[in-house]
Amino acid sequence: MGITDILNRTYVSWMDAAGPESDIVISTRVRLARNLNQLPFPHLTDEATGKQLMQKIRAALPENEEGIFRGLELVSLSQLSPLDRTILVEKHLISPEHAESNSPYRGVAVNYDGSVAIMVNEEDHLRIQCLLSGLQVNQAYKYAQTVDDKLEESLDYAFDSRRGYLTACPTNVGTGMRTSVMLHLPATAMTNQINSLIQNVTQFGLTVRGMYGEGTEATGRFYQVSNQVTLGQTEEDIINNLWTVVIQIVEQERYLRNGLLKEMKFQLEDRILRSYGLLTNARMITSNEALGLLSDVRMGMDLGIITWVNRQVLNELIVAIKPAHLQKAAGKEMDPVERDLKRAEIIKEKLTGKKQ
Amino acid sequence: MGITDILNRTYVSWMDAAGPESDIVISTRVRLARNLNQLPFPHLTDEATGKQLMQKIRAALPENEEGIFRGLELVSLSQLSPLDRTILVEKHLISPEHAESNSPYRGVAVNYDGSVAIMVNEEDHLRIQCLLSGLQVNQAYKYAQTVDDKLEESLDYAFDSRRGYLTACPTNVGTGMRTSVMLHLPATAMTNQINSLIQNVTQFGLTVRGMYGEGTEATGRFYQVSNQVTLGQTEEDIINNLWTVVIQIVEQERYLRNGLLKEMKFQLEDRILRSYGLLTNARMITSNEALGLLSDVRMGMDLGIITWVNRQVLNELIVAIKPAHLQKAAGKEMDPVERDLKRAEIIKEKLTGKKQ
Repeated sequence: MGITDILNRTYVSWMDAAGPESDIVISTRVRLARNLNQLPFPHLTDEATGKQLMQKIRAALPENEEGIFRGLELVSLSQLSPLDRTILVEKHLISPEHAESNSPYRGVAVNYDGSVAIMVNEEDHLRIQCLLSGLQVNQAYKYAQTVDDKLEESLDYAFDSRRGYLTACPTNVGTGMRTSVMLHLPATAMTNQINSLIQNVTQFGLTVRGMYGEGTEATGRFYQVSNQVTLGQTEEDIINNLWTVVIQIVEQERYLRNGLLKEMKFQLEDRILRSYGLLTNARMITSNEALGLLSDVRMGMDLGIITWVNRQVLNELIVAIKPAHLQKAAGKEMDPVERDLKRAEIIKEKLTGKKQ
Repeated sequence: MGITDILNRTYVSWMDAAGPESDIVISTRVRLARNLNQLPFPHLTDEATGKQLMQKIRAALPENEEGIFRGLELVSLSQLSPLDRTILVEKHLISPEHAESNSPYRGVAVNYDGSVAIMVNEEDHLRIQCLLSGLQVNQAYKYAQTVDDKLEESLDYAFDSRRGYLTACPTNVGTGMRTSVMLHLPATAMTNQINSLIQNVTQFGLTVRGMYGEGTEATGRFYQVSNQVTLGQTEEDIINNLWTVVIQIVEQERYLRNGLLKEMKFQLEDRILRSYGLLTNARMITSNEALGLLSDVRMGMDLGIITWVNRQVLNELIVAIKPAHLQKAAGKEMDPVERDLKRAEIIKEKLTGKKQ
């Protein structure tokens, strides 16, 4: 089963840093909200309909198919430990809310490399997510659409010819699509341009959030840009709009970095190399501090100051240092101090390539 | 000439970390103030008597002798560049006041390894210093006495049978002897015991100062303990008194370190390893920050947390990162930013053994 592999290693597809603009754009996500006709929305569902829905979706998933469908098998949340569910959150494969449930009538399906993940009975009956590395809005949409089409072959979606796809929350009605891009914007943050960025982006119907979505802080200067509007725009409009804005943000970030490098070369090199020194030497480190330092190292790689670290290693580290991944790696529950120790150990090992 | 070697390398004898208690006691210094009969004290001297004094002392120094006299040749301050005079200050071989003069009638003689240094026409006609590694008060006194005896064979000292050796400043009258010990007391400092230490030490006629003597701050938690009284005590009294007090300070420092290690092992390891990480990665670093971090690393070595650094390397670094040594190493004058860059480079090189 694909999900076991996913749970037992850090790597999933979006970490490979192979997509376009991978220096600044970590990943692109497209998510489609879908509901079945004639069945109440999840928050109104009883056991019998929950069970029925799980069965329908399990049956709709293609078996033994290759490509993006490989390994895509529906698992009940009750089959997964709380730790494993949190691991899926840390990898950005399911939502924190979904992970809190251990209902047998809620489920998750993840393909072989995590590029496709489906939540069943979260806010909607179906949330189809496609998550790729770098800036790949079109490609991610294409994959999501492929999964969507495949499911629609055997499922009857709730669709209104005027309103589009019907969803549990009215903000998703229409395309039911949310696209988002995870960006690393250290220079924009260091030069205090984030607030004006947020304002500009809002004018295009987009919103800026922290790393783990709504209500989370922007640690390590990682930001999520996503569309707000799902109604009255085609999928193509949404995609083009997001891509156009993100490319501008990326260009501005590059421009600001070069400015910093020109104006305060030594100070910037110093900051980046010190962050690397702390990461590779600390005996214990919190998640927040580590993210901030990893952000510096990442910028150092982009600017050619740190040449000996691989970008995929850094993407994996962002997730490997989270509590659930740490505890999975240690094979036991750990208190915060134990986690800080383990985190320092893993960072040192991954960055230097040396086992402690 | 011995002094050329001394000026062209960092190492002098006190840095070898071979003396007793070298983990906590960096070095021991014994200095004798002597003046010649019938000649005015230096602050009252004219050119003719200055010249006469230089000649007398040059003649009194033994030629081609081995042992501690090797290389001991009198050089006028006017023969040395301001940079070279500062280098001698940074190595603790002459006083900052002496280094400010470029008079041909003031001089310095340093033996082959810097364990003996003589200042001529500083505050007194002669200041004979012996400087050894670790806690070697007896040995340092023995060496100073040997040099003193040798000079007295041909010089007529100003000596009063009731008051002892006469000196320019009344605080030195009597034995004319000042002994001091350079200590590294991070645990005493971290646990805020320094003030009570200073009070206790004062009761024994001793005083605590920063690294470069009177009026200098205690950077990097290095402290100098020295005798205040020169009159009414024999040399043996002074030596025994200092030794007894220093041994107690050393024991207390060790006790406090073990306490820290027991109560906050991970935090202490973390602090020490982070300091090492900063020292080996920073692109630029000030002298003060470096001393603080080197102090951590030194404690880490003493506690077995850092096992791959040599104590002599660390002693040399304390001096190699000072402005004059940096500029000598670079072969040019440097502004503060250039020094911070060069300092970081040298620290990295010495600690990791890798040329940049």
